Amino acid sequence: MTVEPVRLLERARDGDRTALARLLSLVERGGEPAREIGRLAHRSAGTAHTIGITGPPGAGKSTLTSTLVQVMRDAGHRVAVLAVDPSSPFTGGAILGDRVRMGDHALDDEVFIRSMASRGHLGGLSLAAPEAVRVLDAVGFAFVIVETVGVGQVEVEVAGETDTTVVVVNPGWGDAVQANKAGLLEVADVFCVNKADRPGAAEARRDLEQMLDMTGTRDWRPPVVDTVATDGTGVADLWAVILAHQRAQAASGSLTRERAGRVRAELSRILARRLLEQAEARTEGIAFDAVCAQVVAGEVDPWEAADRLLAD
Amino acid sequence: MTVEPVRLLERARDGDRTALARLLSLVERGGEPAREIGRLAHRSAGTAHTIGITGPPGAGKSTLTSTLVQVMRDAGHRVAVLAVDPSSPFTGGAILGDRVRMGDHALDDEVFIRSMASRGHLGGLSLAAPEAVRVLDAVGFAFVIVETVGVGQVEVEVAGETDTTVVVVNPGWGDAVQANKAGLLEVADVFCVNKADRPGAAEARRDLEQMLDMTGTRDWRPPVVDTVATDGTGVADLWAVILAHQRAQAASGSLTRERAGRVRAELSRILARRLLEQAEARTEGIAFDAVCAQVVAGEVDPWEAADRLLAD
Repeated sequence: MTVEPVRLLERARDGDRTALARLLSLVERGGEPAREIGRLAHRSAGTAHTIGITGPPGAGKSTLTSTLVQVMRDAGHRVAVLAVDPSSPFTGGAILGDRVRMGDHALDDEVFIRSMASRGHLGGLSLAAPEAVRVLDAVGFAFVIVETVGVGQVEVEVAGETDTTVVVVNPGWGDAVQANKAGLLEVADVFCVNKADRPGAAEARRDLEQMLDMTGTRDWRPPVVDTVATDGTGVADLWAVILAHQRAQAASGSLTRERAGRVRAELSRILARRLLEQAEARTEGIAFDAVCAQVVAGEVDPWEAADRLLAD
Repeated sequence: MTVEPVRLLERARDGDRTALARLLSLVERGGEPAREIGRLAHRSAGTAHTIGITGPPGAGKSTLTSTLVQVMRDAGHRVAVLAVDPSSPFTGGAILGDRVRMGDHALDDEVFIRSMASRGHLGGLSLAAPEAVRVLDAVGFAFVIVETVGVGQVEVEVAGETDTTVVVVNPGWGDAVQANKAGLLEVADVFCVNKADRPGAAEARRDLEQMLDMTGTRDWRPPVVDTVATDGTGVADLWAVILAHQRAQAASGSLTRERAGRVRAELSRILARRLLEQAEARTEGIAFDAVCAQVVAGEVDPWEAADRLLAD
């Protein structure tokens, strides 16, 4: 097991898709093999430009991603796509069906598509996704797309921790009080009004521009791009804007700054996870059972119970 | 400050809505006042039956909740509603506008409605929501409804940690690959097909029944109720089914079991949070900055960096 990750990485670099799939499975599974892959990948990572794609369910993110990949392929780029769905119990892509999502690229050896899902793990996906991205980066993909389902806290966080984050909305989205507008606004480097052939596209664009006006000045004002992913309209523009953002980041030095900030955030999450692992021992013993019984009996409240366990 | 929470609780028990609102604000804000309220509330809590309402955005949860509250009011019950939106940056309900959500009940003193939101805090809402529910329980509401926006991990968790969890779907929901079906199936005690006057209601119901067939035998098979929340159709049936679930839980003893399980889960989350607070000190020093710089430079990967920080 100690040499296998090295060989898998070599093979994946040479274009062996099975080796790459195996690497990502090991990363998802965690444990010592995942750690070794992480160490190796980190050394050669850092050259890929990562692109996050997020937005409300039904916005057409999968179709847009698929069309964008086609535009990138036509420009001669190799592309990796990580489709992240924290709410799905399935993992590894086989069941969710990468072929369903991205049928057009199933036979293209220069496109690698992978689904990633995880439930129940506190912070599981927000820890595993950056590791998977580093592997895809390390094996030589110049562009790695991270597409997330939904706009939950974890989804937005995962999509936001990319170099260029594209937030996909639709005409009429402004009406939904429920949308996580502020969260999306915070992570967006580019806004995409998809299904822009439907009524309300101009209003959606105006809403976004007004929101952007209110956020004040930044180095980079997120452009708003209209697309119709189903027939490809505007997707070349979207790609041009992503490249413009990449150039602007390099020119201003913000890429280095942002990546350093992401390292801090990731390191904090890993620290929390490690401490949580240390805490788990405390939730398995007789003391924990006894304290739980006291809480159920109404003798102590959960916070005091936690303090007692930690004081032991 | 040391006596205030006691007095606020007394006043809230006597029907003082301002005192209750203040208690919930203190709970949301955290710190020592929140802890004291938690201790006091825990002592008198445990009599309310809690009802979770969750489902995809746009399923009509707010309207259904509002209509259900009317049915409960007509039956003579006092009701508290906690509307939980982890993706909103707003808190306290004033901005999101409880009046927008539940305009029909704005003038009813026996209905208390509160919005709760939080971003950026790891597990913030999944810790604060049970505390808020305990306060509403302790001040004498026999029924506390927890309505969540969306079906993200946190939303489903918060809605699932109630005595009776109602999962609201619509005709056609089965088509959406994106829906967190397995997660919703896991938490559901009752399924509600809302907007059942639209085409596809029978199919939605059949899909749900088939999913339930596949999950095998349980003490309680979640009933599927058709509703049209906008005109009230079926909402009395929904209420009857919720009461039937309450009786079944009492008869089988599962309520005690489930509540004990929730205590364990909550205690684990609090332990994790406390340890995270301890960890935060480690992300603020010179050592942390130095290690981050090493990660950015590619010298160590984030996991090894975390281990180094913890070994110090």
